[in-house]
Amino acid sequence: MAGISRRRLFGLGAAGVAAAGAGTLAVRSLQGEEAGPTTATAAGSGTESAAVPFYGEHQAGIVTPAQDRLHFVAFDVTTRDRAELVELLQEWTAAAARMTQGQEAGALGAVGGLPEAPPDDTGEALGLPASGLTLTVGFGPSLFDDRFGLAGRRPQALADLPKFPGEALLPEISGGDLCVQACAHDPQVAVHAIRNLARIGFGRVSVRYSQLGFGRTSSTSRSQATPRNLMGFKDGTANLKLEDTAMLREHLWAAPEDGAAWMAGGSYLVTRKIRMHIETWDRTSLTEQEAIFGRNKGEGAALGMAKEFDEPDFAKRGPDGQPLIADIAHVRLAHPSSHGGARMLRRGYNFVDGSDGLGRLDAGLFFIAYQRDPRRQFVPVQLALARQDVLNEYIKHVSSGLFAVPPGVRDAGDYWGRGLFG
Amino acid sequence: MAGISRRRLFGLGAAGVAAAGAGTLAVRSLQGEEAGPTTATAAGSGTESAAVPFYGEHQAGIVTPAQDRLHFVAFDVTTRDRAELVELLQEWTAAAARMTQGQEAGALGAVGGLPEAPPDDTGEALGLPASGLTLTVGFGPSLFDDRFGLAGRRPQALADLPKFPGEALLPEISGGDLCVQACAHDPQVAVHAIRNLARIGFGRVSVRYSQLGFGRTSSTSRSQATPRNLMGFKDGTANLKLEDTAMLREHLWAAPEDGAAWMAGGSYLVTRKIRMHIETWDRTSLTEQEAIFGRNKGEGAALGMAKEFDEPDFAKRGPDGQPLIADIAHVRLAHPSSHGGARMLRRGYNFVDGSDGLGRLDAGLFFIAYQRDPRRQFVPVQLALARQDVLNEYIKHVSSGLFAVPPGVRDAGDYWGRGLFG
Repeated sequence: MAGISRRRLFGLGAAGVAAAGAGTLAVRSLQGEEAGPTTATAAGSGTESAAVPFYGEHQAGIVTPAQDRLHFVAFDVTTRDRAELVELLQEWTAAAARMTQGQEAGALGAVGGLPEAPPDDTGEALGLPASGLTLTVGFGPSLFDDRFGLAGRRPQALADLPKFPGEALLPEISGGDLCVQACAHDPQVAVHAIRNLARIGFGRVSVRYSQLGFGRTSSTSRSQATPRNLMGFKDGTANLKLEDTAMLREHLWAAPEDGAAWMAGGSYLVTRKIRMHIETWDRTSLTEQEAIFGRNKGEGAALGMAKEFDEPDFAKRGPDGQPLIADIAHVRLAHPSSHGGARMLRRGYNFVDGSDGLGRLDAGLFFIAYQRDPRRQFVPVQLALARQDVLNEYIKHVSSGLFAVPPGVRDAGDYWGRGLFG
Repeated sequence: MAGISRRRLFGLGAAGVAAAGAGTLAVRSLQGEEAGPTTATAAGSGTESAAVPFYGEHQAGIVTPAQDRLHFVAFDVTTRDRAELVELLQEWTAAAARMTQGQEAGALGAVGGLPEAPPDDTGEALGLPASGLTLTVGFGPSLFDDRFGLAGRRPQALADLPKFPGEALLPEISGGDLCVQACAHDPQVAVHAIRNLARIGFGRVSVRYSQLGFGRTSSTSRSQATPRNLMGFKDGTANLKLEDTAMLREHLWAAPEDGAAWMAGGSYLVTRKIRMHIETWDRTSLTEQEAIFGRNKGEGAALGMAKEFDEPDFAKRGPDGQPLIADIAHVRLAHPSSHGGARMLRRGYNFVDGSDGLGRLDAGLFFIAYQRDPRRQFVPVQLALARQDVLNEYIKHVSSGLFAVPPGVRDAGDYWGRGLFG
């Protein structure tokens, strides 16, 4: 390996090319290798380092048991050329198929390319395992304007969200033509994936905003314990779970009969960045905190019940004749029974963006919910919460996103959004 | 457990009091329990969930094998009453002794307290293990002004840093009277700890700034592989390691003969938030990237050498007669041999604070280095780098911190900074 830098590098480059096509690696190699068409190392979520299959009927990252870390990004499309946009989606799909399997973003890798060219991968995830990385793409309402000839293909379910009482949305961290949700058990892996998609997209898209999150705030599988949000309460107890196949069909996946045939097998994503007034909350009494949520803090049981998963009894009254769970308690307002059975698959993350310059933590919940039709699910639930929830004294919605998440990529010949553009 | 909320809560509260003193738990309980005086569950760093001993000659979180996540906070002291400040340090020490052992911040916990009072712990880490949490406190130069009668006790080694060429420091995220470095393998645990210290400090300190980090960028033990920074290069190969006891004595720990006897067994901390121009770097050729670092990207070996830990040969020249490692390559400028053997213990983390509104990731390195005397270690190294390092085209120092980190807390009767205030 000794010798002058360039000669050594050229040697490495040649080795990288020679090895191309040799197969799929569980760990990012130090030389580029071609991604095989199948997900050889996919092993479910048994271990935190394993790979999650990329190809399938639905995109990964929705019912996939929620990983612990998030890097979410929204892009503005800067090209006005439809063919360039399609080409980008094809390149992104190929890179995502590689990265989710623990490989580098491009076949030439971070050190296997031509020394006079920038690397084909940024390199900070070299040697790290797949870490359960999933990449999930979505199309925002603004993509369906007249730039790309898509106006006639906008799904009805992708209706603009109404203005909700009390929200204080910042346009610069809301919306977006495209989004990518990267989830992994290692933040370095999630950050690496988004960074490489942004790098590949240079000149065609630009990053509108991005958000890191940690400590999933919902479980999406019965194999996971319900985690706690930054208010210290268990969150998402009544969440849709991947094991509930019939419920997922009813509440999660878009179907052909919904219109917009290209979305069948997809879902609709709503994101809300919810800032919490942490310091005020921390000075609120335990009784008041529990009354606001309608659950106790330790076990997570609805008030009057013993266990977290006991169904709340909203009719139960205390000796004073008042309902144990107040009419405006969060658990009652958000409960499916208050909305004709409306359910969502929540997949949010805590965020802490440092502090706000006024001595307060800039922290809260990056809310993520997937559903079949936001008009029947997120919108009525959020309207009820925004109008009545006592929790509103302690939170503020500062960003909002809405995206049509197309179905999964079937195989190496397919790409994200082929049904829409093809 | 059924019954009205308050009765149930009072019941829990009584149980919590009854259980007080029963011992130390490895996992945060749902009822408050007194911390035992010793670190019963401390088991080193064998697993990511284990507890790190809190009491000792040195503070934990310095030579402790670097955990994967950081929450760093700087506080301004708002009280002008020395006794109140001492009381705060005593309360913080007691809370830190508990939290690092996987317990709640206060003895009454998040659900075991009086229902009409705010909880004694914010609760979001309930049920999570200790996760290797360490809490490390430091005193900034501004603490030694005339507010607390400490002017005569300022260590000479805590000399203000000079202005470095090219730095663009933001005062609102620099400095601080006090700092706490929280490191853990679970960000929820690190965030929880800082939040509870801020909560306890309400009315006496206010948060000046805080920073989350992930993916340690240095190894502090020979048992750890060298990680990669966001430029994709292995970082901190020549770092001080906990196994090098004699080197630590020489380069890391303050000694009685250094003056400021209260600092013996302590160390000096320099923090620098270094923003990276990620997108520009990603468009730089591999040859140029490697020439700038003076190392190859894959293996991390100094140019001209085969392996990461091979000592760089700065005399080696290529066939063109030029040095293989340029005079202004990072590895040469930062190498101990260029600074009379000056070494530091680096313990930095990557950060990604979302994006900057101009389509670029707001990302880089939160540099953390411990040393015996910054005047002989950080300052000369950084002056050389700031003057000559080609890397400066790709980075910008935006914040700076300097702190005297006192020795460890010996036992339950001791507290952070007793040598300074006692």
